Amino acid sequence: MKPFHILPPDSAIVATIQQIIDHKTKPPGALGDLEDLALKVATIQQTPSPVLRQPHLVIFAADHGIAGEGVSRYPPEVTRQMVLNFLAGGAAINVFCRQHGIVLRIVDAGVKGSLADHPQLIDAKMADGTQNFAREPAMTVEQCERALERGSEVVDGIVRTGCNVVGFGEMGIGNTSAAAVLMHLFTGQPLAKCVGRGTGLDDQQWARKLSVLGQAVGRYAPSQTPLQTLATFGGFEIVQLCGAMLRAAENRMLILVDGFIASVALLVARQWSPAVVDYCVFCHQSAESGHRGLLDFMGAQPLLRLNLRLGEGTGCALAYPILQSAVLFLREMASFETAGVSQSP
Amino acid sequence: MKPFHILPPDSAIVATIQQIIDHKTKPPGALGDLEDLALKVATIQQTPSPVLRQPHLVIFAADHGIAGEGVSRYPPEVTRQMVLNFLAGGAAINVFCRQHGIVLRIVDAGVKGSLADHPQLIDAKMADGTQNFAREPAMTVEQCERALERGSEVVDGIVRTGCNVVGFGEMGIGNTSAAAVLMHLFTGQPLAKCVGRGTGLDDQQWARKLSVLGQAVGRYAPSQTPLQTLATFGGFEIVQLCGAMLRAAENRMLILVDGFIASVALLVARQWSPAVVDYCVFCHQSAESGHRGLLDFMGAQPLLRLNLRLGEGTGCALAYPILQSAVLFLREMASFETAGVSQSP
Repeated sequence: MKPFHILPPDSAIVATIQQIIDHKTKPPGALGDLEDLALKVATIQQTPSPVLRQPHLVIFAADHGIAGEGVSRYPPEVTRQMVLNFLAGGAAINVFCRQHGIVLRIVDAGVKGSLADHPQLIDAKMADGTQNFAREPAMTVEQCERALERGSEVVDGIVRTGCNVVGFGEMGIGNTSAAAVLMHLFTGQPLAKCVGRGTGLDDQQWARKLSVLGQAVGRYAPSQTPLQTLATFGGFEIVQLCGAMLRAAENRMLILVDGFIASVALLVARQWSPAVVDYCVFCHQSAESGHRGLLDFMGAQPLLRLNLRLGEGTGCALAYPILQSAVLFLREMASFETAGVSQSP
Repeated sequence: MKPFHILPPDSAIVATIQQIIDHKTKPPGALGDLEDLALKVATIQQTPSPVLRQPHLVIFAADHGIAGEGVSRYPPEVTRQMVLNFLAGGAAINVFCRQHGIVLRIVDAGVKGSLADHPQLIDAKMADGTQNFAREPAMTVEQCERALERGSEVVDGIVRTGCNVVGFGEMGIGNTSAAAVLMHLFTGQPLAKCVGRGTGLDDQQWARKLSVLGQAVGRYAPSQTPLQTLATFGGFEIVQLCGAMLRAAENRMLILVDGFIASVALLVARQWSPAVVDYCVFCHQSAESGHRGLLDFMGAQPLLRLNLRLGEGTGCALAYPILQSAVLFLREMASFETAGVSQSP
């Protein structure tokens, strides 16, 4: 695997930015999380006047062999149908991206069946879905390395537009199963804490999903490397997401992290480059049950908790205007001095 | 006091709207709080295609006699200075209203000192601040009735613009003290649970604030009517807020509720007309310590928890794009049928 070179942002500028924030016409700290956010963006961009340029939202889509085990309420063909819905502009993420002027791109990372060319579609198909990891590894280590690279190349294309803020979403029937196993293996938390109801399983269906995944994990030796683990249980969209996040951090872009699947991709990415997290904003705590524990494991505070469990990058798009607000108050608000407002003694 | 006539929205349309939401291309319930929000707005507007028209944010500003007791970190003249800052466009709320195309109006409900005419300023001054309720009632019952009416007249002016969604903010050094006492008396919760750190008191200053307010409450007979209680401890901005919310609900407008002070105004308003709450969206849970308990008391779930404690209506403005997202997904998202996506069996 080609290494990624991610440097943490230079923190020498932090004190200067903090002083500017503290002189804005408000009690110190009164803008709460927005102040932390403004400090983060300004530090990443190394300027007290940060700008969000050409925001992009990239959805990686792929199918999963494990879906054949009946771990989802929806049939596998929904992955492809939803990709067509994204391209037709009818999904939730289309609505929210239009609302906020976010450029939307869909990546075919491994969707079953062919997709016609479309200006919003990026072809990075690895195969017609992964293998069923209940029986054999989801992909080979070589495929996994190639998928990391393909994911990072998607970001190379986006960087060329001048973009400096990118959110990542995903679509893939069965992908909460792959993500749950990866969370279990990379955090050491019990599998039952990592397995959720996905698109809406009932108690019995959930118990079956847990049993299928428990048996699958038991099939493989526990001493695998991170790359082997990712190859064995990952989905092509999860692996490409992982490569994309690493490349975005290399480029010092602000990374918007969505829900459970995207957070698992980040969990894997930080195994190789812990500094990737310095470029991330955790946008939303999903209602998918494992997400809370995963955010806690990474010490992450999500901006929003709106009980979404949809994926597609919807949490990123909904959080984007709040990120904009943070940048705008830093750039536009008056200071006590310029506004002639008395400060606290 | 002239009664307000507030009817709850007709719920006959709820089942129709819910069915439309459930047929959108997403698992049932997967848009979480946005689905509840869409249902609420559609029910208030009595249409499956709601529209947010001419959004307004109205800041009521006034001074408080109780500020003379040293209950705030900031001197009383900051109320007027911040009003000038609002009119000059330099405060946090200016930034967020510009970002979202929200019309901003400032109401002089009782600011100490004169203010020059300004197109964004509405003159509804009751007096140069209230009296110090540590010594005498903040205002007379007649002043309180008149302030309720003046607040409602502000909304009459806004209705004429075609506006159907309005957020209310406030500015007034000392107003967390007035609000804390009102919360204590209208909820029965211990005063210490209602008194917070306002603009940033330390432990000793907080203890002094609690002691001053406890003694003040003790001066008055406990058997007052709601109107008498509001007159004794209220601020002119709190009373006008209360009247404004009641009139907005009479006009079936969507009401955006900000933080601690605005929620206390609503707490008083619902004493007279419980149905006012049916028109409210609770935008943000403030870091001001009493707010969490107050929201729980009203059974309210805030949309955002960003640790703001600034007032000015900032929570409303930050939540506004999420409200827009709720309306837009209801109007624009494809259904399973039109998108050709398979539903769960």
